[in-house]
Amino acid sequence: MTETAPSRLLGLATALVAIPSVSHQETLLADAVESALRLCPWLQVERIGDNLVARTGLGRSQRVVVAGHLDTVPPAGGNEEPRLEGDVLYGVGAADMKGGLATFLHVAGTVPEPAVDVTWCFYVCEEVERRHNGLRHLWAEHPGLLEGDAAILGEPTGGRVEAGCQGTLRVRIELVGARAHTARPFTGRNAIHRLGPLLGAVAAYEGRRPVLDGCEYAEQLQAVAVEGGVAANVVPDRAVVTVNHRFAPDRDPGAADAALHRLLDPLLEPGDAWEVIDASAGAPPALAHPVLASLVEATGEAPRAKVGWTDVATFWEHGVPAANFGPADPLLAHTPGEHVSAGELASAAEVLTALLTAPR
Amino acid sequence: MTETAPSRLLGLATALVAIPSVSHQETLLADAVESALRLCPWLQVERIGDNLVARTGLGRSQRVVVAGHLDTVPPAGGNEEPRLEGDVLYGVGAADMKGGLATFLHVAGTVPEPAVDVTWCFYVCEEVERRHNGLRHLWAEHPGLLEGDAAILGEPTGGRVEAGCQGTLRVRIELVGARAHTARPFTGRNAIHRLGPLLGAVAAYEGRRPVLDGCEYAEQLQAVAVEGGVAANVVPDRAVVTVNHRFAPDRDPGAADAALHRLLDPLLEPGDAWEVIDASAGAPPALAHPVLASLVEATGEAPRAKVGWTDVATFWEHGVPAANFGPADPLLAHTPGEHVSAGELASAAEVLTALLTAPR
Repeated sequence: MTETAPSRLLGLATALVAIPSVSHQETLLADAVESALRLCPWLQVERIGDNLVARTGLGRSQRVVVAGHLDTVPPAGGNEEPRLEGDVLYGVGAADMKGGLATFLHVAGTVPEPAVDVTWCFYVCEEVERRHNGLRHLWAEHPGLLEGDAAILGEPTGGRVEAGCQGTLRVRIELVGARAHTARPFTGRNAIHRLGPLLGAVAAYEGRRPVLDGCEYAEQLQAVAVEGGVAANVVPDRAVVTVNHRFAPDRDPGAADAALHRLLDPLLEPGDAWEVIDASAGAPPALAHPVLASLVEATGEAPRAKVGWTDVATFWEHGVPAANFGPADPLLAHTPGEHVSAGELASAAEVLTALLTAPR
Repeated sequence: MTETAPSRLLGLATALVAIPSVSHQETLLADAVESALRLCPWLQVERIGDNLVARTGLGRSQRVVVAGHLDTVPPAGGNEEPRLEGDVLYGVGAADMKGGLATFLHVAGTVPEPAVDVTWCFYVCEEVERRHNGLRHLWAEHPGLLEGDAAILGEPTGGRVEAGCQGTLRVRIELVGARAHTARPFTGRNAIHRLGPLLGAVAAYEGRRPVLDGCEYAEQLQAVAVEGGVAANVVPDRAVVTVNHRFAPDRDPGAADAALHRLLDPLLEPGDAWEVIDASAGAPPALAHPVLASLVEATGEAPRAKVGWTDVATFWEHGVPAANFGPADPLLAHTPGEHVSAGELASAAEVLTALLTAPR
């Protein structure tokens, strides 16, 4: 790294934060990124909608895909505009993940002859419903563009590797009862009261903590919605709770659903309903892969598990081992005070440069 | 009673069921009832909106008010039209309370010289929000019309006295938490999970059963609505439950609210909210009043407590002791299969006639 890299990176990240790119409105940012990529004669750039893919074609024996999303969540707490405090950049997307985008653009533009071929991918709509996800569309319609031996997904990870990702399952559980007048409840059965033990079991849930490739995945179970009631003087005959289960990548959604059934079935009765409304498989850490092992080594830090779901699972679904890696604290994502520092940007760029230039 | 009274009463009740009178649409029925009342030269009839008040003016030392509502809940399960099976009348309102209205009209028209002065009152909108209630409007705007020493309210009671009524209190309890990502719930606090113990306490509630004037009032507590949730992957920071408490008439709403606080406050935390959204006092049985004591005696059955709220409380609020009395099983009210038999109608008419004609 040159001495000026940290401040150049911070300027680039600031410029990216200054271009609004809330999900579904990424065109301006895609234009800017496309312009930057087209300044690099060693990259073949393809634009599909507002998704961008830029590839080296050096005939290397391995190809690494480096992908990041262009979109941000909506601004919150007055963080629309970038704001610098010393060498720290604040603003929507600073952590998730325009700091990462700046790092990628910097490395793409400063490493014309990497030791592996590189595919840079910038895509839309990661922060919204999965059906809009640009990476998913690219895999569905242009799978050749994303082929590679391994992938790096630029989510904020604090500059270390967050390996694989957990799966996610949402189940809607409907409990039944029998209506009655609230002055004579003994003639019916209160379905909302039946929620008590069910929520108790969910709250008392102790998830497995399997260790895969040295990373501990902590499973979770949370009620995310509850609803019930007929009228102000009626014992309700129906109550619905939706739970979200985060499960380690040693299980597929079917096994995770079966585990949930084992936990909650003792509290269910004939007539109750159990509907899986959303299920996404996770991805194993795959840290034995040489590229990902090198990435871990380049960070100089022990990897940890990614407990949330990320597009690492999308790569894994298509047979490409992937890991999460990017600057900024992941806990800041989607918070009004999200930020990234010049030092974090520089470290991430250094790691990525080392990975892509190390002889293989 | 003449031998033909049961079949005449059944015919009258059938005619009343045949005139639809869902709340807010009582005009046709009020027209019919007004015509019948005006056939009785011993009654002074007043119509205020679709409410009717018909009074004797015999200068008796006591005046008894007999009141019943004209409206029904909406039809259900195909019970719009009256249907006779032998001497049993089915149809919306058959039990609640066109059977009672038929009884009242029959006695009003066949007892020209009662031993007490009588005020017959037929009013609108008992089955909907209290602000529409015709009896309440009459008390507010024409209190002189409803003055009396005691009142009989024609709810279905199975032909016995259901004494007084319980009060009702609705409280909206909001539990707070702290938002977090469901993959890292330990950084927040799940407000829906906090519902578990609260619903447990509500479900385990054992109400008092005070005995007043020989009637046991069974207090109840039921959750009637529950709501919460932010997004599919967010630990929710807010959950709301609404409870309905039915309390015996030896307590006022303030004391009932205090008792609820004693039960649930141990589960609440700073930041939670407690809002009384509806409170109606009950009414004590007042069976020591000579008119109500005579009514009990005339039924030949032990009185029991009215556990739901009724307009008996509206009379009591204005200083008039009142009791619920009418034909038909109270548990049939608002059910698609509600019905009343000729025998029930005849018995109720007999009791009322005896009460109003007994020398005082």
